Amino acid sequence: MQQNKRIVVVGGSAAGPKAAARARRMDEQADITIIQKSPELSMASCGYPYYVGGFFDDRNQLLCTPAGVVRDPKFFANAKKITARTGTEVLSIDRKKKTVRCRDMASGATDEVPYDTLILTTGSTPNMPSIPGVELEGITTLQSMHDADYLRKIRDEKKVKKAVVIGGGLIGIETCEALQLAGIEITVVEMMPQLLTFLDEELAKLVENHVRSKGAHVITGNGLAAFLGEKGKLTGIKLANGTELPCELAVVAIGVKPNTALAREAGLTVGKTGGIAVDEYMQTSDPAIYAAGDCVETLHRITGAMVHAPYGDLANLQGRVAGENAILGNRATFPGTIQTGICKVFDFTAGSTGLSERNARRAGYDDIVTVVNASLDKPGFMSGKLLVSKLVVDRKSGKILGAQCVGPGEVAKQIAQWAMAIMGRFTIDEVVNADLPYAPPFSLAIDHFIATAHLMQNKLVGRLKGITAAEVKKKLDAKEPCFLLDLRGPDEYEVLRLGLGETLIPLGALRKRLAELPQDKETPIVCFCKISLRGYEGALVLEANGWRNVRVLEGGIMAWPYPREK
Amino acid sequence: MQQNKRIVVVGGSAAGPKAAARARRMDEQADITIIQKSPELSMASCGYPYYVGGFFDDRNQLLCTPAGVVRDPKFFANAKKITARTGTEVLSIDRKKKTVRCRDMASGATDEVPYDTLILTTGSTPNMPSIPGVELEGITTLQSMHDADYLRKIRDEKKVKKAVVIGGGLIGIETCEALQLAGIEITVVEMMPQLLTFLDEELAKLVENHVRSKGAHVITGNGLAAFLGEKGKLTGIKLANGTELPCELAVVAIGVKPNTALAREAGLTVGKTGGIAVDEYMQTSDPAIYAAGDCVETLHRITGAMVHAPYGDLANLQGRVAGENAILGNRATFPGTIQTGICKVFDFTAGSTGLSERNARRAGYDDIVTVVNASLDKPGFMSGKLLVSKLVVDRKSGKILGAQCVGPGEVAKQIAQWAMAIMGRFTIDEVVNADLPYAPPFSLAIDHFIATAHLMQNKLVGRLKGITAAEVKKKLDAKEPCFLLDLRGPDEYEVLRLGLGETLIPLGALRKRLAELPQDKETPIVCFCKISLRGYEGALVLEANGWRNVRVLEGGIMAWPYPREK
Repeated sequence: MQQNKRIVVVGGSAAGPKAAARARRMDEQADITIIQKSPELSMASCGYPYYVGGFFDDRNQLLCTPAGVVRDPKFFANAKKITARTGTEVLSIDRKKKTVRCRDMASGATDEVPYDTLILTTGSTPNMPSIPGVELEGITTLQSMHDADYLRKIRDEKKVKKAVVIGGGLIGIETCEALQLAGIEITVVEMMPQLLTFLDEELAKLVENHVRSKGAHVITGNGLAAFLGEKGKLTGIKLANGTELPCELAVVAIGVKPNTALAREAGLTVGKTGGIAVDEYMQTSDPAIYAAGDCVETLHRITGAMVHAPYGDLANLQGRVAGENAILGNRATFPGTIQTGICKVFDFTAGSTGLSERNARRAGYDDIVTVVNASLDKPGFMSGKLLVSKLVVDRKSGKILGAQCVGPGEVAKQIAQWAMAIMGRFTIDEVVNADLPYAPPFSLAIDHFIATAHLMQNKLVGRLKGITAAEVKKKLDAKEPCFLLDLRGPDEYEVLRLGLGETLIPLGALRKRLAELPQDKETPIVCFCKISLRGYEGALVLEANGWRNVRVLEGGIMAWPYPREK
Repeated sequence: MQQNKRIVVVGGSAAGPKAAARARRMDEQADITIIQKSPELSMASCGYPYYVGGFFDDRNQLLCTPAGVVRDPKFFANAKKITARTGTEVLSIDRKKKTVRCRDMASGATDEVPYDTLILTTGSTPNMPSIPGVELEGITTLQSMHDADYLRKIRDEKKVKKAVVIGGGLIGIETCEALQLAGIEITVVEMMPQLLTFLDEELAKLVENHVRSKGAHVITGNGLAAFLGEKGKLTGIKLANGTELPCELAVVAIGVKPNTALAREAGLTVGKTGGIAVDEYMQTSDPAIYAAGDCVETLHRITGAMVHAPYGDLANLQGRVAGENAILGNRATFPGTIQTGICKVFDFTAGSTGLSERNARRAGYDDIVTVVNASLDKPGFMSGKLLVSKLVVDRKSGKILGAQCVGPGEVAKQIAQWAMAIMGRFTIDEVVNADLPYAPPFSLAIDHFIATAHLMQNKLVGRLKGITAAEVKKKLDAKEPCFLLDLRGPDEYEVLRLGLGETLIPLGALRKRLAELPQDKETPIVCFCKISLRGYEGALVLEANGWRNVRVLEGGIMAWPYPREK
C-alpha cells in the first residue's frame, strides 16, 4: 500500500492554513501538518487595527470561521484533518533527509518531522529602526495578536494621552485612526515627504489634509533619531531635525521584511528583494519545497520585475496555489501582482492599483500621460460623495499603467474597476464606453471611472491641456505670470475659493466677457471650477477665441491640496 | 467664409444634450440646436423613483448641474452656446432638403430648421397594455417629469391607500419601493413567473422574498386583464385568472418601445428589435443622420446580436460618440452593450452583467456551466453583509458569459468587476488570482468575486459537484430519494434550518460519524451548510470514503429561496 503523502506547512497565519486546507481538499488521505510559532492560527491580521480602534470588541472574531468557530488545533484536526502544532518553532530544514527540526517553545523539546513536500509560509517581521531607546517599554508594532492585545488594552485603559506612529504607510495610517478614535493625541511621523507612498504626491496630500482635519498631527520628511525614556519607559521621541515630541506610546510601522532565515540556511534561492524566490507554481529552487505569502517575492505583472508584496489577499491566493501544486504537481499558477492596495483613513478611503506616476517613471516608462479627475461617486440627490482619481497611461500604446483614488466616496469600486482594466491590459479607448452597473444609488450615469477615462482620452488627443495643482503651485510660488480663471458662479465663490488672485467669470458669461481676459493671447491662463468640467469647457472657449496658452487645473478646487482662502 | 456647421439634435433628455455638448466641445463655432418636446431638458430620469420615494425633496435636483444650475434653455445658451427649443415637436425630416419641420406646441406655429448633420435622440415610450379601462384616472407610468410630479404629489398627499405596479422589472421594482416607503399598500403584478427577468429564477426568488419581507405583495405568472373603474376613476384591476384587486393607483412599467416614427417616415432603416439601425459610429442608414439612446438598437458584445438596451448610461455614452462624429466625421466608435444593469430593492441590491443562464441558452450556448456562491462582502467583524452570486461560463473556452448578484451586501462592486472581466474576455483561470483592493473595511481577504471564480474553477475540473436549490426542490417535491446532510453546528441549526428531513452532522464530526450515513454508496446525498463551504468540504470527505453520488447545495441555506422551517 502506498504511503499517504506527507505535507508539512511551516507557518500558520494566512498563506499556511490556506495551503493546508487546499491540499486537504485535493487529497483526503494526505498527512498534513502545520507548524506555527505563535499561539494562534489563521489570524485575520489585517483586522488588528479595527480591533484596536474598537470597531468590534470580541477578540475571537479575528480567529473565527464565519460560523463562529475558533480556528484552533482542535478545529483543524476535526474539520480539516490537519495537525496544527502551535507554539512550535522550526529550527532547520534538512533537504536531503526531507525533515524539519522543531522545538516546542514551552517545553524546549525538539523533534524531527518528515515531509514529502514542504510549504514555507514563514511570513514577515516588522522593521525596527536601529536607534537608541528601541528597547524601551511603550514601543510596539502592530503585526501579531500579541501586539493587537497590547494596543487594545491601552485603548481600553484610557491612560495613554499621547502617542506617535512611526511610518505613514498603510498600517501606520490605519493605526493612527485606531488610536485617534481611542481618544489618544496622535502624531504620525514619516521620513518620506508624504504619507502613503503608493500614492503620488498630490493625492497623498489630500489624504494628509483629511488626517489633520481629524485632529491628528502629521510630520513628513523627518526621520526618527532616538526614542527617549525614563526608568525604562518611553517618554518621547527625537526626530532627525532635533525636534522632541513627548509620548508614552510609539507604534512602529515602517514596513516588513520577509522571514527567510530558514530558507537561506537550507540553501534555497532568495531573491534580490529579500524574499524567497519562487516560480509561477510557487515552487522554490528545491522542487520539494513551495513557499507563499509574505516570505516570498512576487512577479509584478506590469513591469516584469520581482517585488515584495506582503498583502493578505495575495498570501491567501498564493497559499491556495502552493497547496494545490504540493498535492497534484505543478498545475496551478500564480500570475503575480499589480500591487493593488487600499486603506480606510477616517472618512476617506485611499486606494491604488498598478503603477503610480513615480513608480512608472522609476520602472522606465518615459512617455506617460497622467490625469487627475474629481467628481461625485453618485448623484448629488443620492448624497454622492467626492472621488479624486489619478490615472497613469503609456502614451504610445494607450495602455493603462495605474490608477489611484482617494476621497470620502466609493473608492474601492473605482480601484477594483481599474485593477480589472489593468489585468485585462485594456487601452484607454477600450474603457471609455465601458458598460458598468448604473443606477442613481450606485453611480453617476457616466461613472467616475469612465469620466476619468474620457478626460484621459481628451488629453491623449491634445484636446484637454491639463496642469496639475502642483505645477500651478510651483508657478505661483515662483511668481511666474499666470492668469487664474475661476469659471464658477458668484454664490459658489462665496463659499469656497482659492483666493490666490484668481478672476471670477462664470462659464455662462465667458463668451460675452472675453475683454476682461489678458489680451496678450500668449498669456498663460489656468481655467478651473469646482471639479474642472466648466474649467475644461472654458478653456475650449478661450482656445477657439485665439488664446494659445490655456491650461485646465486638473480636478479643480476639489483636488487642490494646498492652502486656500476658504 | 465657410458657414458654421449646423447640428440639429432631436430630443433633449439624455443622449441629446450629451451629443450637443460633445459637439460643442469639438467645435466652438458650430450652430447647435436641441429640439425637445417636453418642457424640461437633460432630466436625470433614472432618479425619478428616488424623488417619488422621498430620498430627496427638491425636484430641481433632477434638472440641475452638479453646481445647482437648472439646465434650461438659458443655461444651454450661456454655458454651452446651444439653442435649446423646448415644448417643440419635430413633425418630419426632409432628408433631401436637410431640414426638420417643427411645431411650437404652445402656439401651434411651425417652421423649418436646416441641418448639415442631424442627431436623433428621440427616446422611448412606455408600453401600455391594450385592455379595457386603460384611460381611467389613476393610471400612470414613471417615465417623464410629469409622471414623477404626479406620483410625488400622491406620496405627499397621503390619500392613496392601495396601489399596484404592473411589471416587475427594474422600474417596476424601484417604483414599488418608492410607493411602499410612502406608506401605500403595494402589489407588484408580473406576467412572467418571476420578478427581474434579467436574473435567473433562483436569484429572482431571493429578491422576491425580500420584497415580500418588506410588506409589499407580489403576484407573478399572472397578466392584467382589465383596469376597473367608477366615474372615470380607477378602483381596481382584474387579473388574467379573474382575481380582482382594489386599488386607486396603478403604475404601468412593462417596458418601453423606441420612438422611431420620425425615422421610419424619413425612410431610415429600423432594425428587427424596433430600434433605429445604427453602425458602430452611431450613424443611421443616412450618413447625415446619427442616432443615440433609447431610440436605437445596440450590438450585444457577447452574442453579436442587436438588442434594444434602453439604459441611461449607454444613452450618454452613445450621445457622446454621435456628437463627436457629427463634427469630426466617423472617428469615435461605440462597442455595444453587455447589458449590465442594477437596481436597489429596499435593503437589497440586484445586478446583472452579460448573459443569464436563460439568455445564454437562448443565445445558443449549449455547453455552459453555472455556479451559485453565497458569502459576505467583508468580514463579519466589519459588519459584512451577504452576497449571493450566480456565474455563467462557457465550458469549452472557460470564458465568462455572465454574472448576477443579489443581497444586502456591496453588489455594485461585484457586478462592476464581472462587467470588466466580461469586456476583457477573461477566462475563469484569468480571474482566480485577481489582484483586487483588499482591506477589511472593503472585502474579505478572498473577495466574493474571486471566491465565486474559485468555485467555478473547482466545478469545471469536476471537483465541486454542485446542485442548485431548484434541483433539490424538484427532487424533494417528486419524493425522489435524497439524503440531505447539514454540516453545521447544533447551535446554528437551532437558529436557522431547512427542516426538510435533513440530518445534522457537524463537519468536524463527519469523519467519525460516517456510519450514520446511508451505507448504499449510490444513495444521492446533498451536502450543505450556511453558504456551502463546509458543504463542499463534507462532500469531498464522503467521496474520499466511497460515496459516489454526492452533491453540494450551491450557496447553502443562504441561497435557498424556498420556504424553510426557520
